[in-house]
Formats: sequence, structure tokens, C-alpha cells
Amino acid sequence: MILEIINKKRRNEELTKEEMKEIVMGYVEGKVPDYQMSSFLMAIAIHGLSKEETLQLTDIMLHSGDVVDLSKIEGTIVDKHSTGGVGDKTTIALVPLVAACGVKVAKMSGRGLGHTGGTIDKLESIPGFRTEVSEKDFIDQVNRIGCAVVGQTGNLVPADKKMYALRDVSGTVESIPLIASSIMSKKLASGADKIVIDVKVGDGALMKDVKSAKQLAKLMVWIGKEYNKEVRCVLTSMEQPLGLAIGNGLEVLEAIDFLQGNGPEDFKELTMHFATTMVSMGKGISMKKARKLVEEKLISGEAYLKLVEMVEAQGGKLDEIPVSKRVFSVQSSKGGIVSDIKTEKIGEIVRSIGGGRIELHDKIDPSVGIVMTKKEGDLVMEQEELLKVYLNQKDLKIQSVLDCFEIGDHLQKPRPLIITTIK
Amino acid sequence: MILEIINKKRRNEELTKEEMKEIVMGYVEGKVPDYQMSSFLMAIAIHGLSKEETLQLTDIMLHSGDVVDLSKIEGTIVDKHSTGGVGDKTTIALVPLVAACGVKVAKMSGRGLGHTGGTIDKLESIPGFRTEVSEKDFIDQVNRIGCAVVGQTGNLVPADKKMYALRDVSGTVESIPLIASSIMSKKLASGADKIVIDVKVGDGALMKDVKSAKQLAKLMVWIGKEYNKEVRCVLTSMEQPLGLAIGNGLEVLEAIDFLQGNGPEDFKELTMHFATTMVSMGKGISMKKARKLVEEKLISGEAYLKLVEMVEAQGGKLDEIPVSKRVFSVQSSKGGIVSDIKTEKIGEIVRSIGGGRIELHDKIDPSVGIVMTKKEGDLVMEQEELLKVYLNQKDLKIQSVLDCFEIGDHLQKPRPLIITTIK
Repeated sequence: MILEIINKKRRNEELTKEEMKEIVMGYVEGKVPDYQMSSFLMAIAIHGLSKEETLQLTDIMLHSGDVVDLSKIEGTIVDKHSTGGVGDKTTIALVPLVAACGVKVAKMSGRGLGHTGGTIDKLESIPGFRTEVSEKDFIDQVNRIGCAVVGQTGNLVPADKKMYALRDVSGTVESIPLIASSIMSKKLASGADKIVIDVKVGDGALMKDVKSAKQLAKLMVWIGKEYNKEVRCVLTSMEQPLGLAIGNGLEVLEAIDFLQGNGPEDFKELTMHFATTMVSMGKGISMKKARKLVEEKLISGEAYLKLVEMVEAQGGKLDEIPVSKRVFSVQSSKGGIVSDIKTEKIGEIVRSIGGGRIELHDKIDPSVGIVMTKKEGDLVMEQEELLKVYLNQKDLKIQSVLDCFEIGDHLQKPRPLIITTIK
Repeated sequence: MILEIINKKRRNEELTKEEMKEIVMGYVEGKVPDYQMSSFLMAIAIHGLSKEETLQLTDIMLHSGDVVDLSKIEGTIVDKHSTGGVGDKTTIALVPLVAACGVKVAKMSGRGLGHTGGTIDKLESIPGFRTEVSEKDFIDQVNRIGCAVVGQTGNLVPADKKMYALRDVSGTVESIPLIASSIMSKKLASGADKIVIDVKVGDGALMKDVKSAKQLAKLMVWIGKEYNKEVRCVLTSMEQPLGLAIGNGLEVLEAIDFLQGNGPEDFKELTMHFATTMVSMGKGISMKKARKLVEEKLISGEAYLKLVEMVEAQGGKLDEIPVSKRVFSVQSSKGGIVSDIKTEKIGEIVRSIGGGRIELHDKIDPSVGIVMTKKEGDLVMEQEELLKVYLNQKDLKIQSVLDCFEIGDHLQKPRPLIITTIK
């Protein structure tokens, strides 16, 4: 009985796999109402789950819908996931770069949630770009040109889809076992052989501190092992937006800029690190050899040409990415050194001007966003520009933007971008 | 923002009264959906509330609807409440007994919930008995004959009504601060001067152990003090059904039997104790003097005549209480001493044969129930009767009844019925 299962979890007792299945599949099938699932999820968010229970939950979600079969693609398939951040356009730059190195990437991505963006929303800012692709066309494209990035098919992990939407509106997002089972069920259902996960840590991420990020990483690596899949988690800092651009079209443009040999240092560093890791895992070569190959393919322009090829294959027009013409320069009201940027707030601002969804069915405006002029550690004069806002239909209060910056009077030690790897 | 309030409680942070009010009144007004309230209630059920928060919640619920004004009734009004048990028909015997002693009782009672019965459902087994009475008629009747028992008016503590229904179906019933604020908001809104609460402890009760029952009792006494109301909590055992009868009509008949000078010992003991406490508090006399008065009024038959008067005043026909003619005697499959009775299960069986509700709008069958032949500590022979089942429309598996009894081979020390008083 469902109530007895919820009561057991309230009392922090271990559930059997049958009990876990009864409530999760009951929810997917519409037999368990939202209000029972949300009280159950809150009990998990507070008490946690044992490792065994987390594995069971992952397995139930993984098999709640279709499982993608990528065996028709030759070679080792390496997938990459990010727990979500602000300005994280890494996947868009990474996929063609890794494919240019000869490692196939068959990637299913998600949409934005909360204050964080999603790769599919970003790619859809490219006019004509198809993200809904049949499994056959998806596999054909990967075999032909080496990479594809598509949206999740309708029936991939429906349990996670429904539970995530409920968690988002019932205060149960922040839970290590729920996050781990959500990510791992999707990654396992997507069919890759090896998985690299960018676990973001900091003010702009779900995991606010290194300790809980490590817990999450270890749990996901362990789940991967249970399925004989190699999982590497790289903890990276999300104390300020990644790169300079936040907003869908603007982020794609920054990714293109990187593939053309330019782009901001932090974004470059992160993308090169993940590309190297994926190539190393995919080819079974050392990180050093992989890094050399990745650098060659970036400098030669082959990575950029691979992006052009992929976008063309999926029907997109790369030179028509919309950027709003209504640009506002926000200037600092005092001089000093940028000591802190409220990253979640920056994400929320971009969301509020149309760059993300407030409600489930909102349409995204691809032309809006923010481009940072100053980042942490930068010197700023009074009345010097902090950032540019690209506005379109919606309005914005200037003060809310200024509130995102803390201007101090002494230089701080820069925080490392790449914190550690768990494998 | 509602989500921030839920997240705070998930992190076990203290809420302000404004935040508590925003979510509780938002729920009453239909702005906060069930799935958000149930995850919030689960966070409270697990983390608890501070004393201050519990008081605030009580106050918000108390003022969520009408507050009854009993100032037009002369003398001290003493109210009595039970946290709910199996076979607990005390109120029906108590009210006329206390009124016969000259202490006015203006009582609003509730319906059955879960496996426990409710006084209003029991009284409605008396054909014609009106439980929906206007506030004016209610007060007039108390002034005229000294007592009345009616259902809660429509708009008394609507917050509790809505939250209780949700707790019942979301696994969040067992929570000391939620139970305390639910009981106290109703009692305070009902307008009595002094309140006696029967806090049931044991297998058949919400509180399964004495420690948590004491916590609940102390919390309710403290809340009462904050409103300048004297509250006494008596912890009593609910390890087996109270008396012999379980089921609405059968229980009223047992209460009548008691008022006529008969009835089972445990039920007699409990009713006399609560009547004495109420008379002592209402008249400001010692327990000893009160006890003497209560005994006089019972023996003289005045208490029974008071019941007759009350039932007539509310339109009921006392000699027409329905009892099913389909009676089954359940016999023991082995001999020994009854060492344990699964009280919650007994309650569930009576509920399942129509004596209680499974869903919110089920109709109760007043004619069904169980009458115990054997209770804890009784000797039973093989094939001797354990209990009688009064069935009507619904069927029942015999084994489920037998499973309620544990038959051992040695005599156990009888457990005390009245455990302690907290005031």
C-alpha cells in the first residue's frame, strides 16, 4: 500500500525494490497522485537513500521507458553531462572538437531547468536546427559525420521526466540520491559506453559546496560500476558564470568563437579539459596524448568545420543566430575589484528577460541575454562597464543587475576552475 | 515565495509567522496546490517544529475560520477531547454524567478518521439524532438542559479540516507538532474555558509510546497556557479496544449500558476518571469530592436520564439503534491466555465491514461492528468464543480476525489503563 511506503520513508526505514517500484511506477502510470509523490520525495530529500536504494531507484527509472541501443555505431561512445550552471555552453564546443579527434559522440541533451540553461534550448537558437530526430537518423548521422546532439526521445526515462518536474515545484530538487539517480538513469538509458560528468560546485550550481559535490560524484561513479560503465566526474567551479555570454544565441556564438581559436580563458580551459578526458577515454590513450590531439584539431580548424557539418546535417543556419539589437551597458557605481558575482542571480535575470522558462510551457527568446565585461578579480573603475544586457520584449530593473556584483578593495586569490576528478 | 518557504523547512530552518501564514492561508484559499502542501507537511513531520512555530501554526489555524463564542452560557465550560482510539465511546457516557453533576458541557465533536471512530458518527447511529445544529440552538440547549454534542460548524478551523484530510492521504499524520496544533486550534476555536484531553497511547493509538505521548501532552498544555486556558492531559492505554463494543450503534448501546449501572470495567474506570476530572475543574472542587458527586449521579440514574433528555432535545430515538442480525461467533483455534490484541487491526476490520470510511465520502453502516468476548489476560479454551462480528452488506475473512489475537501460555501483568496526568 502506497501510504505504508510513504510512512516507512518518513520513519527513515529502508525500502525494498518492490516497494520502490510500486510508488515510482504507480506515479508514472498516474495511479499515485502528485501530493503523495511530493511528500515521498520530501522524505527522501531529508533522510536520503541508502546506496542500494539509490541503485534500485536508478534501475526502475532507467527501465520506465525506452532504452537507446547504440550498438550500430562503431567504436567507443563517450557521453558527457553537466549538472547545470550559468553560461555553460561547453557541450556545443566539445562535441565537434571530440568528433574531429575521431571519437564518436551520440549525445542526447536536455532543456533548461530553474536558473540553469540547457543545451537543446541553446542549439534551437540556431534557425532551422532540428533537435527532434528519429533514433535511426540519429545513429546514421553519427556513423556518417561522427557526431549528433538531439533532444531526448519522448519515452526516454519518463519516470525521471515526471519526477523532475514535480521536484522543481515542490522544494525537493536538492537531494544527492535524487540527483544521482536522475542523471544516471538518463545517461544509462542513452546508451553510451563511457560517461564524463561535469559536477558543478558553487553559488550558481545545485551543489553549493565541494563536500556534497564529492558525495554526488562518488555515488554516480559507483552506480556506473554496477552497470559496467566507466564514469568519470570532474568537479568544476560555478562561483561565476562560465565564459562571458549567458543566453541562448549569445552562448552559441561564444562556442563558435572558441572553435575559431578565440574565446574567454575559463571557458577554453574547461572545454579543453573535458575534450581531452573524452578523447582519452574514447581512444584509450593517455591524457597527455589526448590533449595534444585535441589542440591540433582545434588549431587546424577541423573542429569548427565539424560543427558546421553537424549544424548543416541537422538543418540549422549558423549565420542567422538572432541577437537582440536593444543593448544596455550597465556601469559600476563604484571603483574597486570584483570580489564576487552572484551567479544564480545572473541566471535568474537572464531567465526573467525571456532567456529561460518561468512556467513549464513558456517559449524562450533566443536573442536575449547578458555578456559579462568584468569577471571575478577584475579591476573596475567608477562608471566603467560591468556587463551588457541584450533585451527584447521584457523589461529589467538596473539595480537587480548591480546587486549581482560585489566590489571590494583588495585582490583575492583566484579560485581554481577545475577542482578534482573522481573516478 | 512558497518554494523558498518549503526549501527552508527542508533545511530545518525556523519559519517566521508571516511565512507560516503565507503557506497555510495560501493552502486554505486554494493558491498553494496539494503537492506543495504535502511536501511541506512531510518536512514538518520529519524535522518537527519549534514550540514558537507550533504556537504560530495553532494561531493561524484557529483564526482561519469562525471562532465560537460561548459567553452566553453561564458557568465554567469544560471541554473534553480524545486523540482517538478503538472502541472509545467515552464522550457519549461522559457528557450526560458531567451535566448531571451541574457542569455544563457544550461539545463539538468530529467524525472518524483512519482506523479510529468519531463521536459524531456514533451519535448518528441513533435514528433522527441531529448533529448539525445552529450555534444559537446549540447554546440554548446547553443553557436549558446542561449539555449538547454537535458536529463542528462548517467554517470552524477550515485550515485544519483541509490539512487533516491531506495528511491522512500523504503519510504525514504522525507528527507531534501537527497533532498538537490540529487539536488545540479546534479546541480553542470551540470556545470552552477549560479542556481535558485523553491522550491515547499504544498500538491502537496515534502515539505508539509513552515518551511521545508525554511530549504531545506537554506541548498542548503549554499552548493552552499561552491562551490562558487550563489544559489537562490524561495519558491512557490503547493497547486493546476500550470496553467490548466497536462499531457505531454497538458503542452507543454500551454507553447506555454504563449509564444504567452496568458495562465493562475498563470503560467504566476511564469514564469515571474523566467525568471526575471535568467536574473537579468545572466546579473548582477536589478530585475526591468530584468523584463522590459523579458516583451519586450515576447510581441515582440522573446521568442516564440526562442522556435521554439530550437525545430527545436533538431529535433522536434511543430505542431504535440498529444492530445487524447477521452475527458470527469467532472461536479460538487454540487454548491459552490472550496475551495481545492487535487493536489497530480490529479497528481496520470494523472500518472494512462498513463501520468507518475508506474514502472521504463513504456512508457508514451504523449496524455493524465487533463485540469482544475475550480481552487481554483472559483465559480461553480451544473453540471458545473470542468475539462476535455483526456483519451486514460486506464480507469478511475469518483468518484476519483470528490474526488479531495472540494466545500465549502464561499470565502477564495487566497494563495500567490510566498512565499519568500532565497539567
